[in-house]
Amino acid sequence: ATKLRKHIISPFNPRYRAWEMFLVLLVIYSAWISPFEFAFLSYKKDALFIIDNIVNSFFAIDILLTFFVAYLDSQSYLLVDNRRKIAIRYLSTWFIFDVCSTVPFQSISLLFTDHSGGLGFQILSMLRLWRLRRVSALFARLEKDIRFNYFWTRCTKLISVTLFAVHCAGCFNYMIADRYPDPKRTWIGAVYPNFKEMSLWDRYITAIYWSIVTLTTTGYGDLHAENPREMLFDIFYMLFNLGLTSYLIGNMTNLVVHWTSRTRNFRDTVRATSEFTKRNHLPPHLHERLLSHICLKFKTEGFKKQEALNGLPKAIRSSIAHYLFYPNVQNVQLFQGVSQDFLFQLVPELEAEYYPPKEDVILQNEAPTDAYILVSGEVELVASIDGHDQVLGKATAGEMFGEIGVLCGKPQPIGVRTTELSQILRLNRTALLDILQAHPADEHTIMNNLFLKL
Amino acid sequence: ATKLRKHIISPFNPRYRAWEMFLVLLVIYSAWISPFEFAFLSYKKDALFIIDNIVNSFFAIDILLTFFVAYLDSQSYLLVDNRRKIAIRYLSTWFIFDVCSTVPFQSISLLFTDHSGGLGFQILSMLRLWRLRRVSALFARLEKDIRFNYFWTRCTKLISVTLFAVHCAGCFNYMIADRYPDPKRTWIGAVYPNFKEMSLWDRYITAIYWSIVTLTTTGYGDLHAENPREMLFDIFYMLFNLGLTSYLIGNMTNLVVHWTSRTRNFRDTVRATSEFTKRNHLPPHLHERLLSHICLKFKTEGFKKQEALNGLPKAIRSSIAHYLFYPNVQNVQLFQGVSQDFLFQLVPELEAEYYPPKEDVILQNEAPTDAYILVSGEVELVASIDGHDQVLGKATAGEMFGEIGVLCGKPQPIGVRTTELSQILRLNRTALLDILQAHPADEHTIMNNLFLKL
Amino acid sequence: ATKLRKHIISPFNPRYRAWEMFLVLLVIYSAWISPFEFAFLSYKKDALFIIDNIVNSFFAIDILLTFFVAYLDSQSYLLVDNRRKIAIRYLSTWFIFDVCSTVPFQSISLLFTDHSGGLGFQILSMLRLWRLRRVSALFARLEKDIRFNYFWTRCTKLISVTLFAVHCAGCFNYMIADRYPDPKRTWIGAVYPNFKEMSLWDRYITAIYWSIVTLTTTGYGDLHAENPREMLFDIFYMLFNLGLTSYLIGNMTNLVVHWTSRTRNFRDTVRATSEFTKRNHLPPHLHERLLSHICLKFKTEGFKKQEALNGLPKAIRSSIAHYLFYPNVQNVQLFQGVSQDFLFQLVPELEAEYYPPKEDVILQNEAPTDAYILVSGEVELVASIDGHDQVLGKATAGEMFGEIGVLCGKPQPIGVRTTELSQILRLNRTALLDILQAHPADEHTIMNNLFLKL
Amino acid sequence: ATKLRKHIISPFNPRYRAWEMFLVLLVIYSAWISPFEFAFLSYKKDALFIIDNIVNSFFAIDILLTFFVAYLDSQSYLLVDNRRKIAIRYLSTWFIFDVCSTVPFQSISLLFTDHSGGLGFQILSMLRLWRLRRVSALFARLEKDIRFNYFWTRCTKLISVTLFAVHCAGCFNYMIADRYPDPKRTWIGAVYPNFKEMSLWDRYITAIYWSIVTLTTTGYGDLHAENPREMLFDIFYMLFNLGLTSYLIGNMTNLVVHWTSRTRNFRDTVRATSEFTKRNHLPPHLHERLLSHICLKFKTEGFKKQEALNGLPKAIRSSIAHYLFYPNVQNVQLFQGVSQDFLFQLVPELEAEYYPPKEDVILQNEAPTDAYILVSGEVELVASIDGHDQVLGKATAGEMFGEIGVLCGKPQPIGVRTTELSQILRLNRTALLDILQAHPADEHTIMNNLFLKL
Repeated sequence: ATKLRKHIISPFNPRYRAWEMFLVLLVIYSAWISPFEFAFLSYKKDALFIIDNIVNSFFAIDILLTFFVAYLDSQSYLLVDNRRKIAIRYLSTWFIFDVCSTVPFQSISLLFTDHSGGLGFQILSMLRLWRLRRVSALFARLEKDIRFNYFWTRCTKLISVTLFAVHCAGCFNYMIADRYPDPKRTWIGAVYPNFKEMSLWDRYITAIYWSIVTLTTTGYGDLHAENPREMLFDIFYMLFNLGLTSYLIGNMTNLVVHWTSRTRNFRDTVRATSEFTKRNHLPPHLHERLLSHICLKFKTEGFKKQEALNGLPKAIRSSIAHYLFYPNVQNVQLFQGVSQDFLFQLVPELEAEYYPPKEDVILQNEAPTDAYILVSGEVELVASIDGHDQVLGKATAGEMFGEIGVLCGKPQPIGVRTTELSQILRLNRTALLDILQAHPADEHTIMNNLFLKL
Repeated sequence: ATKLRKHIISPFNPRYRAWEMFLVLLVIYSAWISPFEFAFLSYKKDALFIIDNIVNSFFAIDILLTFFVAYLDSQSYLLVDNRRKIAIRYLSTWFIFDVCSTVPFQSISLLFTDHSGGLGFQILSMLRLWRLRRVSALFARLEKDIRFNYFWTRCTKLISVTLFAVHCAGCFNYMIADRYPDPKRTWIGAVYPNFKEMSLWDRYITAIYWSIVTLTTTGYGDLHAENPREMLFDIFYMLFNLGLTSYLIGNMTNLVVHWTSRTRNFRDTVRATSEFTKRNHLPPHLHERLLSHICLKFKTEGFKKQEALNGLPKAIRSSIAHYLFYPNVQNVQLFQGVSQDFLFQLVPELEAEYYPPKEDVILQNEAPTDAYILVSGEVELVASIDGHDQVLGKATAGEMFGEIGVLCGKPQPIGVRTTELSQILRLNRTALLDILQAHPADEHTIMNNLFLKL
Repeated sequence: ATKLRKHIISPFNPRYRAWEMFLVLLVIYSAWISPFEFAFLSYKKDALFIIDNIVNSFFAIDILLTFFVAYLDSQSYLLVDNRRKIAIRYLSTWFIFDVCSTVPFQSISLLFTDHSGGLGFQILSMLRLWRLRRVSALFARLEKDIRFNYFWTRCTKLISVTLFAVHCAGCFNYMIADRYPDPKRTWIGAVYPNFKEMSLWDRYITAIYWSIVTLTTTGYGDLHAENPREMLFDIFYMLFNLGLTSYLIGNMTNLVVHWTSRTRNFRDTVRATSEFTKRNHLPPHLHERLLSHICLKFKTEGFKKQEALNGLPKAIRSSIAHYLFYPNVQNVQLFQGVSQDFLFQLVPELEAEYYPPKEDVILQNEAPTDAYILVSGEVELVASIDGHDQVLGKATAGEMFGEIGVLCGKPQPIGVRTTELSQILRLNRTALLDILQAHPADEHTIMNNLFLKL
Repeated sequence: ATKLRKHIISPFNPRYRAWEMFLVLLVIYSAWISPFEFAFLSYKKDALFIIDNIVNSFFAIDILLTFFVAYLDSQSYLLVDNRRKIAIRYLSTWFIFDVCSTVPFQSISLLFTDHSGGLGFQILSMLRLWRLRRVSALFARLEKDIRFNYFWTRCTKLISVTLFAVHCAGCFNYMIADRYPDPKRTWIGAVYPNFKEMSLWDRYITAIYWSIVTLTTTGYGDLHAENPREMLFDIFYMLFNLGLTSYLIGNMTNLVVHWTSRTRNFRDTVRATSEFTKRNHLPPHLHERLLSHICLKFKTEGFKKQEALNGLPKAIRSSIAHYLFYPNVQNVQLFQGVSQDFLFQLVPELEAEYYPPKEDVILQNEAPTDAYILVSGEVELVASIDGHDQVLGKATAGEMFGEIGVLCGKPQPIGVRTTELSQILRLNRTALLDILQAHPADEHTIMNNLFLKL
């Protein structure tokens, strides 16, 4: 949103982004058509010739345009809109390559000779593959773009690379056969002696078929190298395939490991718990409580991704806690009448937790380390009288419990157990006492509230 | 166990689960039979026709049933039994697909024409493969179900996917050959010119054989594409195989890494220890003690999976500790006569540890950081007199040691060494003193007990 | 070393271990010979027949022996030598399988009929492959045995599995061809019409060649299935291969990742450091100091694998620290005349560190958080006078420095810099003061020593 | 740079390094030429013979030289220049192998017989492959050398290994065919009956083509084993390939996982954050602040790689902090007139952080845990008056804020929010108060400065 100098375009400008995307489409078109022309169309067809030059002119326009596009400095993360700096940066990096991949060598050759260049000019036009760096840059950006699914971006990239390799190898191998002096001693001529009279579609499909049979290492052998020239090409293609296949498998492994990690963590935890209960001969009700807690934790992982918040600066964390917990805390009877300041400092100390039904939150007589505020669900207050658990009452959303033990510093007089799935805010005793110490007036109010409740 | 409205079925109802499982079996049957019918049975056989319609009617019943099944809300984790909400949810998600995959297109076509539909109707009946989402959902559930082994669930899934791909590709490839105008220029006709007269079994086996030779990239080449139509199909099949093979390898790597991680951790620890002793020229007896401790730790990992307990809420941890350690602590001479409250708060602070034979638990004169209770096994009390270690006595299960140093705050007067494999509870000094401070009466009792012992 | 009841053998008895190893060799022999006999030797040769029965009798002996071998209880980690319990455990687990795999079906069949059984008896003798569980158990033990290299154990296991699969598949495939009614329509007969007259060696090599060409998915196609029976076998073999290959790759990936992790960690650290210095434009001398420190840390990782010690019980850690550091500490001038107790508690608090040459250990005026004892190498004492660093003196092995700041509680008056590679013990100020507080007499001695030094 | 004895060369000597590199080139030459000679050149050509002996003599020189090269002791990390120790070490390790791989067996055989040795001597000359250990050692060193990219080093190594395997297998397989009694029953003779008259180039290409078709498991089948001898070789080659392919895939997976880990971490964090905001229905402005913070953190990871510094000794960390932060701190108004000592101890406590625009650094009324110094960028001071946020002023680079709350120990009176990308140093309150306590004079100065500001 920062303002740039006149006539300088931001790289984040939506219209410039659209232009870039349009160029990427042209790149894909020319990456596909260049090897195809090279191998199958020995003379330049008129229509293709014109389309080629139109495409080229778009890239020429882009070269000029680049001199007017600001860039992001990799050190300061600021946009540089100084025209001199932009020009120096472009001239010293990719300018030469961009120009070379845009010069229409074949058209130039037509100016001087009658026929559309020889093999040399065709190889020069292979320079256009340099444009593929745009596709590569696009994928690098997409992978970091959170709006796109990582898995599918990665898959699309891998499939594109594979298809392009298959296409290039098929075309090139066909070209070797087409140019070979003895057509019957070529990979395609050995099977289809009159292959040059076959339709373009049949020849292309055959070439692609050979290419993919080799790439996937299926190697039926119905089409195979027949002369040293083809063998040499095959050797390089197969070495490349070895790398590509490994790369594909490596990527897939990476994705699979990443995918399944959550389920595996869950299962590992459950297995460890089951082993623990089995070894220690824990009674079934304890085992069930353990399992139900772990399952709930796994399910609600999305809820309480507070770990994601740990690396954030304090101010953001405070804002979030304020947004999430302030309404709940404000209405707690214990905190009626306390100052805004007090609540403001209290809120960031709260931690949200989920409890499955019938789980103990507080055991009677345990050390008072935490107080709890019930956000949703219901708990019952339990006390052991003559060795029998008796339900003394219930607490519903908005009530606090465990505060008596925490504020008076004695073992929790009453146990608390959930009756249904409950969301509970936990407040650490030390944190609470620290804040109370800094607000003596509020401490007084709270103690009054506590006595009122009792 | 929550009650639902009348006529609404819970998705966790065992009978509904059985119905779902029955449908999965029907799905597997129709997933196998559909491509087979499509390729090998050009005319509809009567028996199959009837079975097909019966299967279809079961799926039609399930569509109706779905309007009466509650669902689990993904936000609140509560069952929704509101009939309107159920209907809206189903109509807006999978209803259309379910209906399309159930409509008996072939039967309808029979109403209007004499013969059982053309290729078009057969392709429409391919819509039934949509039902496979049920199998996919089943596997997703099984993977999270702790009663099934993760490895075998995953393997079954991968094998099912592979077999289904092999079956489909085999059938489809046969169909292409079957429909091709010149039977001798097909993959199967080139080898078996009269393949149409072969038995169904032989043709099916040959198709599956070709399919799996291609999928595993073995590619003998005895059967291979002979015309562009087959080449095109092969190209897509081989691209798919590349992905599937990578996926299989990725999954296997994932499982192997997970499997071997425990053994590797153990070996890494042992190797690091061995290097450490070697570098520092530690004497052999120290090296052996180190190794025996590490081996024991590895073996008893199952025992003390207390790390699994760390993420649990305090109340559960207390319950477990109470169950495990209370009987041991209750009988310790030092704690005779103390209040229940005291023991209740003491127990969660204990940590169970295993010691191999002849390992020092306490060194004479070390700083008193912990006291220990012997649960099983035997230890001897050692003191160095005139530079010689002398055994002063033995302690057996149920006795406490190290408490003198801890309570009096002076270096441990006596060393303790195990004589056999021993399970020992460790009690941190700070934790003990904190609890004593909160229970002055019990402190008095304990000090009395200590003097009695001395 | 615990004593067992009479006539009960410990599973760790060296002679019993040797017997087990001998059985493993017999297992390997019979695993190799069984499929071979099955496929290539249609009539039982005399020599083989006798060897077979001898091998069988050894396994029969082992079945009897097992009733006298104690076992390790998986719950209590104790050897169980109760004869009744041993018998119950064996009878309820592997007894049936062991017996079935030992019964000499072919010899029995000879008692009743003239020729050595039909296909049925041969398939029954395949039950002997059950014995392979011994090999599997051996590998499981070797992988955990720290005397053997994990990588090579794992590789041997994988190679064994692969070779056994190749051998079995080759033999079985040959048998199918051998038994097929029309020898010319078999995988081997199509190429070598008179294959039954070929030498045993040639036939075996051809079978293994086919097997491995298929397993590695090379699939030349010179030998391939010719009839539905062979196709069916191939289908299963190729499916199995898919799993086996994935398993091999998964294992190799696992090993490679594990292997390279150390180098990669080192490189990651170095790269992060280089980026840090580059971004912050740190001067070259700081960059060099950073790098030399990281390289040294990487090299000496073996020395100070103290992380490996962190999980150990206190008594072991104390013993090691005592062994390593006591001689150094004893001779330090500052600690002359202090009590043994004091040193005993001081030693576990020391941490060994390596410093490359020309690195600052203490900066002049820094906060006094640590004192240092020089174990080997040499340091120079530096003070900045009028803004110039001046060397005041040197300290050699056995001297202490930084103790003035630590004991007097003021900024370090003198900087310290290494002149060569030095090993230094670091002593945290808080730890030292805590120990001094507990030993007032020693505090006095140390203060005297300090004044003497000054 | 340590001085060595006379006539002893350091292994780090640049000229010795160059010599080693020269030998590596000779090794590569002889590793390539040895199998080639072996297979394709049945008689020793004169030129090759001479070159061979020259190469040999260089290696002979190196054997002598090794007796004069110091080595790094693996225990003490010191160079050993004792001539006796060097000799003992070399003689007891690699001397024998080096000599065996250098003896010119063929030349010796020429002394005794007329023709240049038989198969035996050729096999002996295979001993030269022992020299490859130099290449292996070179790669091990390069992988740890931080000047080379890990990925490319590793790739080069893998490609070298693959190419060498292909070359060796091709040569060896050709040799088997060349030596076979019936040339028509060999892998090459079956296709090219007169292969012995083909040009060297064609024969070599064909051999390499076969080799790579097998290694990549493509297995066209146009060239395949025809006799048991070749089958046996193929069996071993394919088993080796299985291992090599797994190794390649394992390495690639390793590299891919390592490569993508950064992007994946970023995406995981973003996804967790998005889920968190969605579940808790956080308002969009909070969501945007969260995301912009995470993106900035990811981008500036290079800036604040201070985690990389955590493992460093205190003195280095202090030096770096001093270099980075001292100029900023010196000019802060609050610290005018304080002692050098004070600043010296303050600087290591600072932590650099980046804040995106419009992010809160301090919320009004929050607990005063940190003070901040603005290094670059701009912040505005905000206070809520009657519930409306009002901008009270701005602070620019070099100013401090939050110090009032920290020094007076009361909630921050004024909120602070960035207006652009800002680099901010954070100073923890506790650390500041600790340092102030140790410098009472500076505390006075600072309080004066604070009052002046107010």
